[in-house]
Amino acid sequence: MNTTDPSPPAAGQRGPLEHGIRDQIVDAARAHFSRFGYGKTTVADLAKAIGFSKAYIYKFFDSKQAIGQAICAQCLEKIIESGDVSMAEGKSAAEKLRRFFNGIIAKSVELIFEEKMLHDIAAHAAEERWPPVTAYLASAEERLKEIILLGRETGEFERKTPIDETCEAILLAMLSFMNPLMLKHNLEGLPEDPAKVINLVLRSLAP
Amino acid sequence: MNTTDPSPPAAGQRGPLEHGIRDQIVDAARAHFSRFGYGKTTVADLAKAIGFSKAYIYKFFDSKQAIGQAICAQCLEKIIESGDVSMAEGKSAAEKLRRFFNGIIAKSVELIFEEKMLHDIAAHAAEERWPPVTAYLASAEERLKEIILLGRETGEFERKTPIDETCEAILLAMLSFMNPLMLKHNLEGLPEDPAKVINLVLRSLAP
Repeated sequence: MNTTDPSPPAAGQRGPLEHGIRDQIVDAARAHFSRFGYGKTTVADLAKAIGFSKAYIYKFFDSKQAIGQAICAQCLEKIIESGDVSMAEGKSAAEKLRRFFNGIIAKSVELIFEEKMLHDIAAHAAEERWPPVTAYLASAEERLKEIILLGRETGEFERKTPIDETCEAILLAMLSFMNPLMLKHNLEGLPEDPAKVINLVLRSLAP
Repeated sequence: MNTTDPSPPAAGQRGPLEHGIRDQIVDAARAHFSRFGYGKTTVADLAKAIGFSKAYIYKFFDSKQAIGQAICAQCLEKIIESGDVSMAEGKSAAEKLRRFFNGIIAKSVELIFEEKMLHDIAAHAAEERWPPVTAYLASAEERLKEIILLGRETGEFERKTPIDETCEAILLAMLSFMNPLMLKHNLEGLPEDPAKVINLVLRSLAP
Protein backbone atom coordinates (compact mmCIF):
# COMPACT_ATOMS: atom_id res chain seq x y z
CA MET A 1 0.00 0.00 0.00
CA ASN A 2 3.09 2.22 0.06
CA THR A 3 3.03 4.35 -3.04
CA THR A 4 6.35 6.18 -2.77
CA ASP A 5 8.98 3.48 -2.18
CA PRO A 6 9.71 0.97 -4.92
CA SER A 7 7.84 -2.22 -4.11
CA PRO A 8 8.27 -5.70 -5.58
CA PRO A 9 6.06 -6.49 -8.55
CA ALA A 10 2.64 -7.77 -7.54
CA ALA A 11 1.17 -11.07 -8.74
CA GLY A 12 1.04 -11.20 -12.53
CA GLN A 13 3.48 -8.31 -12.86
CA ARG A 14 6.84 -9.12 -14.35
CA GLY A 15 10.23 -7.75 -15.04
CA PRO A 16 12.56 -5.40 -13.23
CA LEU A 17 11.38 -2.72 -10.90
CA GLU A 18 11.04 -0.18 -13.69
CA HIS A 19 8.22 1.65 -12.03
CA GLY A 20 8.13 4.44 -14.52
CA ILE A 21 7.28 2.23 -17.45
CA ARG A 22 4.90 0.04 -15.51
CA ASP A 23 3.04 3.14 -14.32
CA GLN A 24 3.01 4.49 -17.84
CA ILE A 25 1.38 1.30 -19.11
CA VAL A 26 -1.15 1.37 -16.28
CA ASP A 27 -2.06 5.01 -16.96
CA ALA A 28 -2.36 4.45 -20.71
CA ALA A 29 -4.41 1.28 -20.13
CA ARG A 30 -6.71 3.14 -17.79
CA ALA A 31 -7.31 5.85 -20.38
CA HIS A 32 -7.84 3.25 -23.09
CA PHE A 33 -10.22 1.11 -21.03
CA SER A 34 -12.13 4.28 -20.14
CA ARG A 35 -12.97 4.83 -23.78
CA PHE A 36 -13.37 1.27 -25.00
CA GLY A 37 -14.30 -0.73 -21.91
CA TYR A 38 -12.28 -3.30 -20.04
CA GLY A 39 -14.15 -6.46 -20.97
CA LYS A 40 -13.79 -6.31 -24.73
CA THR A 41 -10.26 -4.91 -25.05
CA THR A 42 -7.39 -7.33 -25.72
CA VAL A 43 -3.72 -6.79 -24.86
CA ALA A 44 -3.12 -6.51 -28.62
CA ASP A 45 -5.69 -3.67 -28.91
CA LEU A 46 -4.15 -1.99 -25.93
CA ALA A 47 -0.58 -2.31 -27.27
CA LYS A 48 -1.61 -0.81 -30.60
CA ALA A 49 -3.44 2.05 -28.94
CA ILE A 50 -0.66 3.06 -26.57
CA GLY A 51 2.13 2.53 -29.08
CA PHE A 52 4.04 -0.24 -27.30
CA SER A 53 4.60 -3.70 -28.74
CA LYS A 54 2.57 -6.52 -27.23
CA ALA A 55 5.84 -8.24 -26.28
CA TYR A 56 6.97 -5.12 -24.43
CA ILE A 57 3.76 -4.98 -22.40
CA TYR A 58 4.18 -8.67 -21.60
CA LYS A 59 7.59 -7.83 -20.14
CA PHE A 60 5.72 -6.02 -17.37
CA PHE A 61 2.35 -7.72 -17.09
CA ASP A 62 1.59 -11.33 -17.89
CA SER A 63 -2.04 -10.71 -18.89
CA LYS A 64 -4.73 -8.09 -19.30
CA GLN A 65 -5.97 -9.16 -15.89
CA ALA A 66 -2.63 -8.19 -14.33
CA ILE A 67 -3.04 -4.68 -15.80
CA GLY A 68 -6.64 -4.60 -14.57
CA GLN A 69 -5.42 -5.60 -11.13
CA ALA A 70 -2.87 -2.78 -11.12
CA ILE A 71 -5.61 -0.26 -12.00
CA CYS A 72 -7.83 -1.82 -9.36
CA ALA A 73 -5.07 -1.62 -6.72
CA GLN A 74 -4.47 2.07 -7.57
CA CYS A 75 -8.14 2.79 -7.20
CA LEU A 76 -8.55 0.90 -3.91
CA GLU A 77 -5.49 2.67 -2.48
CA LYS A 78 -7.18 5.99 -3.20
CA ILE A 79 -10.31 4.75 -1.45
CA ILE A 80 -8.34 3.77 1.66
CA GLU A 81 -6.48 7.11 1.55
CA SER A 82 -9.80 8.91 1.51
CA GLY A 83 -10.83 6.88 4.57
CA ASP A 84 -7.54 7.79 6.26
CA VAL A 85 -7.88 11.52 5.56
CA SER A 86 -11.48 11.55 6.73
CA MET A 87 -10.67 9.49 9.86
CA ALA A 88 -7.88 11.89 10.87
CA GLU A 89 -10.47 14.66 11.28
CA GLY A 90 -12.38 12.70 13.92
CA LYS A 91 -11.55 13.39 17.55
CA SER A 92 -13.16 10.49 19.42
CA ALA A 93 -12.79 6.87 18.35
CA ALA A 94 -16.51 6.82 17.53
CA GLU A 95 -16.10 9.84 15.30
CA LYS A 96 -13.05 8.29 13.63
CA LEU A 97 -14.99 5.13 12.90
CA ARG A 98 -17.88 7.05 11.42
CA ARG A 99 -15.59 9.23 9.33
CA PHE A 100 -13.45 6.34 8.12
CA PHE A 101 -16.43 4.59 6.56
CA ASN A 102 -17.91 7.81 5.21
CA GLY A 103 -14.58 8.62 3.54
CA ILE A 104 -14.40 5.17 2.00
CA ILE A 105 -17.96 5.20 0.72
CA ALA A 106 -17.76 8.73 -0.70
CA LYS A 107 -14.58 7.92 -2.63
CA SER A 108 -15.95 4.57 -3.84
CA VAL A 109 -19.00 6.26 -5.28
CA GLU A 110 -16.90 8.99 -6.85
CA LEU A 111 -14.36 6.65 -8.44
CA ILE A 112 -16.39 3.64 -9.32
CA PHE A 113 -19.59 5.17 -10.52
CA GLU A 114 -18.33 8.31 -12.14
CA GLU A 115 -15.85 6.30 -14.17
CA LYS A 116 -17.82 3.52 -15.81
CA MET A 117 -14.68 1.57 -16.75
CA LEU A 118 -13.58 1.29 -13.14
CA HIS A 119 -16.92 -0.24 -12.34
CA ASP A 120 -16.32 -2.92 -14.99
CA ILE A 121 -12.93 -3.65 -13.49
CA ALA A 122 -14.38 -3.65 -9.98
CA ALA A 123 -16.98 -6.17 -11.14
CA HIS A 124 -14.27 -8.50 -12.40
CA ALA A 125 -12.23 -7.88 -9.27
CA ALA A 126 -15.07 -8.83 -6.95
CA GLU A 127 -16.25 -11.80 -9.05
CA GLU A 128 -12.78 -13.26 -9.31
CA ARG A 129 -11.52 -12.30 -5.87
CA TRP A 130 -8.50 -10.39 -7.13
CA PRO A 131 -5.60 -9.99 -4.70
CA PRO A 132 -5.93 -6.17 -4.54
CA VAL A 133 -9.45 -6.62 -3.15
CA THR A 134 -8.13 -8.89 -0.41
CA ALA A 135 -5.37 -6.35 0.29
CA TYR A 136 -7.94 -3.56 0.44
CA LEU A 137 -10.10 -5.40 2.95
CA ALA A 138 -6.99 -6.19 5.01
CA SER A 139 -6.06 -2.48 5.01
CA ALA A 140 -9.56 -1.52 6.07
CA GLU A 141 -9.44 -4.08 8.87
CA GLU A 142 -6.08 -2.72 10.02
CA ARG A 143 -7.49 0.83 10.25
CA LEU A 144 -10.53 -0.46 12.05
CA LYS A 145 -8.33 -2.25 14.59
CA GLU A 146 -6.47 1.00 15.33
CA ILE A 147 -9.76 2.79 15.92
CA ILE A 148 -11.17 0.03 18.14
CA LEU A 149 -7.96 -0.13 20.19
CA LEU A 150 -8.08 3.63 20.63
CA GLY A 151 -11.72 3.45 21.76
CA ARG A 152 -10.88 0.67 24.22
CA GLU A 153 -8.05 2.77 25.62
CA THR A 154 -10.17 5.89 26.03
CA GLY A 155 -13.00 3.85 27.55
CA GLU A 156 -15.43 4.66 24.73
CA PHE A 157 -15.69 1.01 23.66
CA GLU A 158 -16.26 -2.29 25.46
CA ARG A 159 -13.27 -4.60 25.96
CA LYS A 160 -14.85 -8.03 26.38
CA THR A 161 -15.18 -9.15 22.76
CA PRO A 162 -11.95 -10.42 21.18
CA ILE A 163 -10.65 -7.56 19.05
CA ASP A 164 -10.35 -9.63 15.86
CA GLU A 165 -13.94 -10.78 16.14
CA THR A 166 -15.08 -7.17 16.64
CA CYS A 167 -13.18 -5.94 13.58
CA GLU A 168 -14.26 -8.79 11.31
CA ALA A 169 -17.89 -8.44 12.31
CA ILE A 170 -17.88 -4.68 11.65
CA LEU A 171 -16.40 -5.15 8.20
CA LEU A 172 -18.95 -7.86 7.40
CA ALA A 173 -21.80 -5.67 8.60
CA MET A 174 -20.52 -2.85 6.38
CA LEU A 175 -19.82 -5.10 3.39
CA SER A 176 -22.85 -4.00 1.38
CA PHE A 177 -21.30 -0.54 1.27
CA MET A 178 -17.67 -1.56 0.83
CA ASN A 179 -17.99 -3.96 -2.08
CA PRO A 180 -18.62 -1.89 -5.22
CA LEU A 181 -20.88 -4.57 -6.72
CA MET A 182 -23.06 -4.41 -3.67
CA LEU A 183 -22.76 -0.64 -3.24
CA LYS A 184 -24.22 -0.34 -6.74
CA HIS A 185 -27.49 -1.78 -5.47
CA ASN A 186 -27.48 0.47 -2.43
CA LEU A 187 -26.73 3.85 -4.01
CA GLU A 188 -30.16 5.27 -3.41
CA GLY A 189 -29.88 4.56 0.32
CA LEU A 190 -26.78 6.77 0.63
CA PRO A 191 -25.80 8.32 2.96
CA GLU A 192 -28.57 7.30 5.40
CA ASP A 193 -28.25 3.50 5.16
CA PRO A 194 -24.56 3.15 6.02
CA ALA A 195 -25.10 5.74 8.79
CA LYS A 196 -27.77 3.45 10.29
CA VAL A 197 -25.40 0.48 10.25
CA ILE A 198 -22.60 2.60 11.74
CA ASN A 199 -24.97 3.64 14.55
CA LEU A 200 -25.77 -0.03 15.15
CA VAL A 201 -22.04 -0.81 15.20
CA LEU A 202 -21.44 1.98 17.73
CA ARG A 203 -24.24 0.63 19.93
CA SER A 204 -22.54 -2.79 19.76
CA LEU A 205 -19.29 -1.20 20.92
CA ALA A 206 -20.80 0.51 23.96
CA PRO A 207 -19.01 -0.49 27.19
CA MET B 1 -47.49 -13.88 1.62
CA ASN B 2 -50.47 -16.10 2.34
CA THR B 3 -50.23 -19.17 0.15
CA THR B 4 -53.54 -20.86 0.92
CA ASP B 5 -56.20 -18.18 0.41
CA PRO B 6 -56.84 -16.82 -3.08
CA SER B 7 -55.06 -13.51 -3.45
CA PRO B 8 -55.49 -10.81 -6.11
CA PRO B 9 -53.15 -11.09 -9.09
CA ALA B 10 -49.80 -9.44 -8.47
CA ALA B 11 -48.30 -6.74 -10.72
CA GLY B 12 -47.97 -8.00 -14.28
CA GLN B 13 -50.37 -10.85 -13.69
CA ARG B 14 -53.65 -10.70 -15.52
CA GLY B 15 -57.00 -12.35 -15.83
CA PRO B 16 -59.42 -13.91 -13.40
CA LEU B 17 -58.34 -15.55 -10.19
CA GLU B 18 -57.85 -18.92 -11.84
CA HIS B 19 -55.11 -19.97 -9.50
CA GLY B 20 -54.90 -23.47 -10.82
CA ILE B 21 -53.91 -22.42 -14.30
CA ARG B 22 -51.65 -19.62 -13.17
CA ASP B 23 -49.83 -22.03 -10.87
CA GLN B 24 -49.64 -24.58 -13.66
CA ILE B 25 -47.95 -22.03 -15.92
CA VAL B 26 -45.56 -21.02 -13.16
CA ASP B 27 -44.62 -24.64 -12.42
CA ALA B 28 -44.15 -25.46 -16.09
CA ALA B 29 -42.13 -22.28 -16.63
CA ARG B 30 -39.95 -23.11 -13.66
CA ALA B 31 -39.24 -26.58 -15.05
CA HIS B 32 -38.56 -25.14 -18.50
CA PHE B 33 -36.28 -22.35 -17.24
CA SER B 34 -34.44 -24.96 -15.18
CA ARG B 35 -33.42 -26.77 -18.32
CA PHE B 36 -32.93 -23.90 -20.72
CA GLY B 37 -32.17 -20.91 -18.53
CA TYR B 38 -34.27 -17.86 -17.82
CA GLY B 39 -32.34 -15.22 -19.74
CA LYS B 40 -32.53 -16.75 -23.21
CA THR B 41 -36.04 -18.21 -23.17
CA THR B 42 -38.87 -16.23 -24.81
CA VAL B 43 -42.57 -16.49 -23.98
CA ALA B 44 -43.00 -18.14 -27.40
CA ASP B 45 -40.41 -20.85 -26.52
CA LEU B 46 -42.10 -21.35 -23.21
CA ALA B 47 -45.60 -21.59 -24.73
CA LYS B 48 -44.41 -24.18 -27.24
CA ALA B 49 -42.65 -26.22 -24.57
CA ILE B 50 -45.54 -26.33 -22.13
CA GLY B 51 -48.21 -26.81 -24.76
CA PHE B 52 -50.21 -23.63 -24.20
CA SER B 53 -50.70 -20.94 -26.81
CA LYS B 54 -48.75 -17.73 -26.36
CA ALA B 55 -52.06 -15.83 -26.25
CA TYR B 56 -53.27 -18.10 -23.44
CA ILE B 57 -50.16 -17.42 -21.37
CA TYR B 58 -50.61 -13.70 -21.97
CA LYS B 59 -54.09 -14.01 -20.47
CA PHE B 60 -52.37 -14.66 -17.14
CA PHE B 61 -49.01 -12.90 -17.33
CA ASP B 62 -48.21 -9.83 -19.37
CA SER B 63 -44.54 -10.70 -19.92
CA LYS B 64 -41.84 -13.25 -19.23
CA GLN B 65 -40.75 -11.00 -16.39
CA ALA B 66 -44.16 -11.37 -14.74
CA ILE B 67 -43.67 -15.16 -14.81
CA GLY B 68 -40.14 -14.74 -13.48
CA GLN B 69 -41.53 -12.57 -10.70
CA ALA B 70 -44.09 -15.23 -9.78
CA ILE B 71 -41.31 -17.85 -9.55
CA CYS B 72 -39.23 -15.40 -7.56
CA ALA B 73 -42.11 -14.67 -5.17
CA GLN B 74 -42.70 -18.42 -4.65
CA CYS B 75 -39.04 -18.90 -3.86
CA LEU B 76 -38.80 -15.94 -1.48
CA GLU B 77 -41.92 -17.09 0.36
CA LYS B 78 -40.21 -20.43 0.98
CA ILE B 79 -37.17 -18.60 2.30
CA ILE B 80 -39.28 -16.58 4.74
CA GLU B 81 -41.16 -19.75 5.76
CA SER B 82 -37.85 -21.41 6.54
CA GLY B 83 -36.95 -18.41 8.70
CA ASP B 84 -40.34 -18.67 10.45
CA VAL B 85 -39.98 -22.39 11.17
CA SER B 86 -36.45 -21.95 12.44
CA MET B 87 -37.40 -18.91 14.56
CA ALA B 88 -40.25 -20.81 16.25
CA GLU B 89 -37.70 -23.20 17.75
CA GLY B 90 -35.91 -20.39 19.59
CA LYS B 91 -36.92 -19.72 23.18
CA SER B 92 -35.39 -16.34 23.93
CA ALA B 93 -35.67 -13.35 21.60
CA ALA B 94 -31.91 -13.56 20.99
CA GLU B 95 -32.24 -17.19 20.01
CA LYS B 96 -35.20 -16.40 17.74
CA LEU B 97 -33.20 -13.68 16.01
CA ARG B 98 -30.26 -16.00 15.46
CA ARG B 99 -32.46 -18.81 14.19
CA PHE B 100 -34.52 -16.58 11.93
CA PHE B 101 -31.46 -15.48 9.98
CA ASN B 102 -29.94 -18.95 9.97
CA GLY B 103 -33.18 -20.36 8.54
CA ILE B 104 -33.26 -17.70 5.85
CA ILE B 105 -29.65 -18.15 4.84
CA ALA B 106 -29.81 -21.95 4.79
CA LYS B 107 -32.89 -21.94 2.56
CA SER B 108 -31.44 -19.25 0.28
CA VAL B 109 -28.33 -21.31 -0.30
CA GLU B 110 -30.37 -24.45 -0.88
CA LEU B 111 -32.81 -22.87 -3.32
CA ILE B 112 -30.73 -20.35 -5.13
CA PHE B 113 -27.49 -22.18 -5.54
CA GLU B 114 -28.69 -25.72 -5.97
CA GLU B 115 -31.04 -24.61 -8.71
CA LYS B 116 -28.98 -22.59 -11.15
CA MET B 117 -32.06 -21.16 -12.90
CA LEU B 118 -33.33 -19.60 -9.68
CA HIS B 119 -30.03 -17.85 -9.34
CA ASP B 120 -30.49 -16.32 -12.81
CA ILE B 121 -33.93 -15.12 -11.83
CA ALA B 122 -32.65 -13.84 -8.50
CA ALA B 123 -29.98 -11.88 -10.38
CA HIS B 124 -32.63 -10.20 -12.52
CA ALA B 125 -34.81 -9.66 -9.47
CA ALA B 126 -32.07 -7.91 -7.54
CA GLU B 127 -30.77 -5.89 -10.50
CA GLU B 128 -34.21 -4.65 -11.44
CA ARG B 129 -35.66 -4.34 -7.93
CA TRP B 130 -38.61 -6.61 -8.57
CA PRO B 131 -41.63 -6.11 -6.30
CA PRO B 132 -41.32 -9.62 -4.76
CA VAL B 133 -37.87 -8.66 -3.46
CA THR B 134 -39.30 -5.56 -1.81
CA ALA B 135 -42.12 -7.70 -0.36
CA TYR B 136 -39.57 -10.20 0.92
CA LEU B 137 -37.52 -7.54 2.68
CA ALA B 138 -40.72 -6.10 4.17
CA SER B 139 -41.68 -9.57 5.49
CA ALA B 140 -38.23 -10.03 6.96
CA GLU B 141 -38.46 -6.62 8.64
CA GLU B 142 -41.89 -7.51 10.04
CA ARG B 143 -40.52 -10.72 11.63
CA LEU B 144 -37.56 -8.83 12.96
CA LYS B 145 -39.85 -6.27 14.57
CA GLU B 146 -41.79 -9.04 16.35
CA ILE B 147 -38.54 -10.45 17.70
CA ILE B 148 -37.22 -7.07 18.83
CA LEU B 149 -40.52 -6.21 20.53
CA LEU B 150 -40.46 -9.56 22.32
CA GLY B 151 -36.89 -8.95 23.47
CA ARG B 152 -37.81 -5.47 24.70
CA GLU B 153 -40.72 -6.94 26.63
CA THR B 154 -38.65 -9.67 28.25
CA GLY B 155 -35.88 -7.20 29.07
CA GLU B 156 -33.33 -8.95 26.85
CA PHE B 157 -32.96 -5.93 24.53
CA GLU B 158 -32.47 -2.19 25.04
CA ARG B 159 -35.46 0.09 24.52
CA LYS B 160 -33.86 3.44 23.74
CA THR B 161 -33.36 3.19 19.98
CA PRO B 162 -36.50 3.77 17.89
CA ILE B 163 -37.72 0.31 16.89
CA ASP B 164 -37.85 1.08 13.16
CA GLU B 165 -34.27 2.31 13.19
CA THR B 166 -33.18 -0.86 15.00
CA CYS B 167 -34.94 -3.14 12.52
CA GLU B 168 -33.73 -1.31 9.41
CA ALA B 169 -30.16 -1.23 10.64
CA ILE B 170 -30.16 -4.97 11.40
CA LEU B 171 -31.48 -5.80 7.94
CA LEU B 172 -28.88 -3.54 6.34
CA ALA B 173 -26.10 -5.12 8.39
CA MET B 174 -27.29 -8.57 7.29
CA LEU B 175 -27.83 -7.57 3.65
CA SER B 176 -24.71 -9.29 2.34
CA PHE B 177 -26.29 -12.57 3.42
CA MET B 178 -29.88 -11.81 2.47
CA ASN B 179 -29.42 -10.62 -1.09
CA PRO B 180 -28.64 -13.70 -3.22
CA LEU B 181 -26.30 -11.72 -5.49
CA MET B 182 -24.26 -10.75 -2.49
CA LEU B 183 -24.60 -14.09 -0.75
CA LYS B 184 -22.98 -15.65 -3.82
CA HIS B 185 -19.76 -13.81 -2.99
CA ASN B 186 -19.95 -14.81 0.64
CA LEU B 187 -20.65 -18.53 0.37
CA GLU B 188 -17.27 -19.60 1.61
CA GLY B 189 -17.69 -17.59 4.80
CA LEU B 190 -20.84 -19.56 5.75
CA PRO B 191 -21.96 -20.18 8.43
CA GLU B 192 -19.30 -18.30 10.46
CA ASP B 193 -19.56 -14.86 8.84
CA PRO B 194 -23.29 -14.25 9.34
CA ALA B 195 -22.90 -15.65 12.88
CA LYS B 196 -20.29 -12.96 13.56
CA VAL B 197 -22.64 -10.22 12.34
CA ILE B 198 -25.52 -11.68 14.37
CA ASN B 199 -23.29 -11.60 17.46
CA LEU B 200 -22.50 -7.96 16.74
CA VAL B 201 -26.22 -7.25 16.32
CA LEU B 202 -26.95 -8.94 19.65
CA ARG B 203 -24.25 -6.85 21.34
CA SER B 204 -25.91 -3.74 19.84
CA LEU B 205 -29.23 -4.84 21.36
CA ALA B 206 -27.88 -5.31 24.88
CA PRO B 207 -29.82 -3.22 27.41
